[in-house]
Amino acid sequence: MRTRNALIRAAASEFDTAGYDGTSLSRISGAAGMSIGAVTFHFPSKTELADAVQEEGRAVTEEALNSRSAENLPALRMVVDLTLELARLMDEEPAVRAAIRLSRERPGTGSWSDVWLPTVRELLDRAYETGQLRENALPADVTTLVEYLTSGAEAYMRSRIGTEAEFESAVAQLKRVWHLALAGVSADGSPCAAPLPAPRGTRDG
Amino acid sequence: MRTRNALIRAAASEFDTAGYDGTSLSRISGAAGMSIGAVTFHFPSKTELADAVQEEGRAVTEEALNSRSAENLPALRMVVDLTLELARLMDEEPAVRAAIRLSRERPGTGSWSDVWLPTVRELLDRAYETGQLRENALPADVTTLVEYLTSGAEAYMRSRIGTEAEFESAVAQLKRVWHLALAGVSADGSPCAAPLPAPRGTRDG
Repeated sequence: MRTRNALIRAAASEFDTAGYDGTSLSRISGAAGMSIGAVTFHFPSKTELADAVQEEGRAVTEEALNSRSAENLPALRMVVDLTLELARLMDEEPAVRAAIRLSRERPGTGSWSDVWLPTVRELLDRAYETGQLRENALPADVTTLVEYLTSGAEAYMRSRIGTEAEFESAVAQLKRVWHLALAGVSADGSPCAAPLPAPRGTRDG
Repeated sequence: MRTRNALIRAAASEFDTAGYDGTSLSRISGAAGMSIGAVTFHFPSKTELADAVQEEGRAVTEEALNSRSAENLPALRMVVDLTLELARLMDEEPAVRAAIRLSRERPGTGSWSDVWLPTVRELLDRAYETGQLRENALPADVTTLVEYLTSGAEAYMRSRIGTEAEFESAVAQLKRVWHLALAGVSADGSPCAAPLPAPRGTRDG
């Protein structure tokens, strides 16, 4: 069990950095300091190791969210907290970063967002019912916004990899973005100030 | 020249779908219906082909943005339009999709967002000076929000790949999200309604 966990840790770090196609079992065995034989004893193929890493990333995420969900706060505030917790996991947990990357590179293997998106949607339904959301801010749309913000946090986290400079954490940056999303950026608070056009060449209304 | 362009097109499609590590010159030669010798005559290595695809994706993006920038609209509205145009390019242009993916997978090769982010920042500075942005919505922060929304649009576009169902376009979805970001989601329009916490284990204020 200890060997298995060490292997999953080493594999998470490799998959996070090099992606699924850029990672080989021999590279993982090197990173873990184990023979290929020891690796394949636990995981016969890269596929099975990637599955295990994604499972681990989802489990870490679920655990972190469960430990917070007992707090008794307004639903909208809980959504904000939840996404900040996701950003913290991105900053600190290689298994979570690897799970996000692998579920993007291996379509059909279960999305990382499946772990938390249903909770976000429930909380936003409750926030809407209790008047915490604007009347025009429908829970389904705000759920999409939350997905966008989480994608942005991940892209930011990835863009810093390999850079030497000191940057703000994904958590701090997401917090800045949330302030804008909660209050809106437009001076008159109305989307009508900038009526949204249909870009040329599309028919999206 | 015609062969070179056909090769870049075939390579863009492969890189978009399989990523840098998942794509080989032989795969590209197969997709282009050319011999490996013909491929390496134009591009001696995968690296050079990836560089050319990223260059093409940036050029397509730049051209699309330039063709719109002549329109005389309020600066904030121009930012919205510009991001919707980016979403349209994601939906329709394999070279743009490949450029986004490759610049993520090949750090240090020039980011796709370098093409449009400076324009967004200039427009937002102007929007702030002319009172189109809320006083607390600083241009630097709103620029970050725009990056997040663009990342979200890309993630959405990627999540649909390989699915059979009919989905709304990236443009239509981004428009829904912009409506929320412009007006805000919080009922009382104030971020103070949900004071943003420092998640446990971090010191980000």
